[in-house]
Amino acid sequence: MNEQEYNAIEAFMLDKMKDSAHDKHHIYRVLNIAKDIVKHEPDADIDILIAACLLHDIGRDAQAANSDICHAQIGGEMAYKFLLTQNWPQDKAAHVRDCISSHRFRGDNSPQTIEAKILFDADKLEAAGAIGIARTLIYAGQIDSPLYILNECEIISTDRADGNSFVTEYNYKLKNVYNSFHTTRAKEIAAKRQKTAEDFYNALIIEATGNY
Amino acid sequence: MNEQEYNAIEAFMLDKMKDSAHDKHHIYRVLNIAKDIVKHEPDADIDILIAACLLHDIGRDAQAANSDICHAQIGGEMAYKFLLTQNWPQDKAAHVRDCISSHRFRGDNSPQTIEAKILFDADKLEAAGAIGIARTLIYAGQIDSPLYILNECEIISTDRADGNSFVTEYNYKLKNVYNSFHTTRAKEIAAKRQKTAEDFYNALIIEATGNY
Repeated sequence: MNEQEYNAIEAFMLDKMKDSAHDKHHIYRVLNIAKDIVKHEPDADIDILIAACLLHDIGRDAQAANSDICHAQIGGEMAYKFLLTQNWPQDKAAHVRDCISSHRFRGDNSPQTIEAKILFDADKLEAAGAIGIARTLIYAGQIDSPLYILNECEIISTDRADGNSFVTEYNYKLKNVYNSFHTTRAKEIAAKRQKTAEDFYNALIIEATGNY
Repeated sequence: MNEQEYNAIEAFMLDKMKDSAHDKHHIYRVLNIAKDIVKHEPDADIDILIAACLLHDIGRDAQAANSDICHAQIGGEMAYKFLLTQNWPQDKAAHVRDCISSHRFRGDNSPQTIEAKILFDADKLEAAGAIGIARTLIYAGQIDSPLYILNECEIISTDRADGNSFVTEYNYKLKNVYNSFHTTRAKEIAAKRQKTAEDFYNALIIEATGNY
C-alpha cells in the first residue's frame, strides 16, 4: 500500500469516527501493535492487515445509535464497500471485511485467517495491562459508573448482581483477557502487561480498604 | 462521639453530597486513613477529626454550581453552623471549620493544628497511588478529557499548553503529591503508594507507544 492509499483509508476512518474522537488513538495503537505482531507472522498480507486495523471500529457510531447493530458486522460491510470504491479487488476487500466482522468474539464468529487473528489479538491487547485499566476507568467515568460498590456486608463487590463498577468490569472482563490470544507474539506482549494490571488492581483494593 | 452523634453528622454529609453520590466512598476512605494516621498522633482530638473528615467536602456542590466559591471555605462555614445545631461547643465547631477550610492548599491557608494536618494528609493520599490514578482517570471520563494528546511531533504531550489529558494531570499534580504530607504516618503510606503509581504510569507510556 502506498502513502496515498493509506491516507485515503485513514481519512475515511477519521470521518466515520467523528463521534468517537478520542478513540482514534485506540485505532493507531491497534495498528502499531499489529505491525509488531506481523513481523513474527511472515505469511500475513500487510495491506489487508493495515486496512483492517484502520477500519475495524468504523461501525461504532452505528452501534451507539442502535444497540441492535453489531459494530463488527456493519463495520466489515462499510469497509468492504469503501475499499471497492478505492479499486481494491473484490477478494481482498472481502478479506478485510471478514477480519473486521470477526474481531469482536461472539459465539462461532472467531477469526479464521492469520490477518483476522492478528487484528483480534491487537484489539484484545487494548484490554490488557495499564492501557486496559486506563481505558476501562475512563469509560466508567463516561457512563457514570463508580470505581466500586460495597455489598450488603460493606465489602467491595466483584459481583455484577450488586451493580456495575470498575471492579466488577475488571473481574468479569479484564482479568480474563490473557487466555484469549491466538498469536505467539501477542501472548508475549500480554504476559508483559498482565503483571502491571494485576499489581495495580491488587494495590487499588489494598488502598481502598486501608488494609496495609 | 457516640453512635447517634456520628450518624447525625454522616446523614448531614450524605444529604449535602446528593449530587456527588459516588464521592461518598472518597469520604469514607479519607475517614479510614485519618483513623490510621491518628493512632500515631496521640495529641489529636478524635471527635474534631471525625467530624472534619465526614464534612470536608460538603461544599463541593456549591462550588460545582459556582466556580467562584471555594468548597473548602463554604464547607467549613456549613459544618460550623451545622455542628452548633448539634449542640457542639463553639470552639470545637470552629476548630472543625478551620480544619475544613485549610484542607485544600491555597497560598497561605495551610493546615495549622494536628487535626487539620491529618485531614489534609488523608485527603491528599487520595491523589496518591492506585486510588489517585483511578480517581483521575474516572474524572477524565466524566469531563470528556482523553488519556493523552499527541503534540505536533506526534509524541505524547506532558504539557498542558497542548491540552488537558490524564497524562498532563499526572505530570502536573499526581506525581508531585508525595512531597506535600505533614504527618510521619501519611509519609509512610504515601511512600508505599508512590511505586504503584509510578510503575503504572511508566507501563502506560510504554504500552501506548509500543516501545517494549
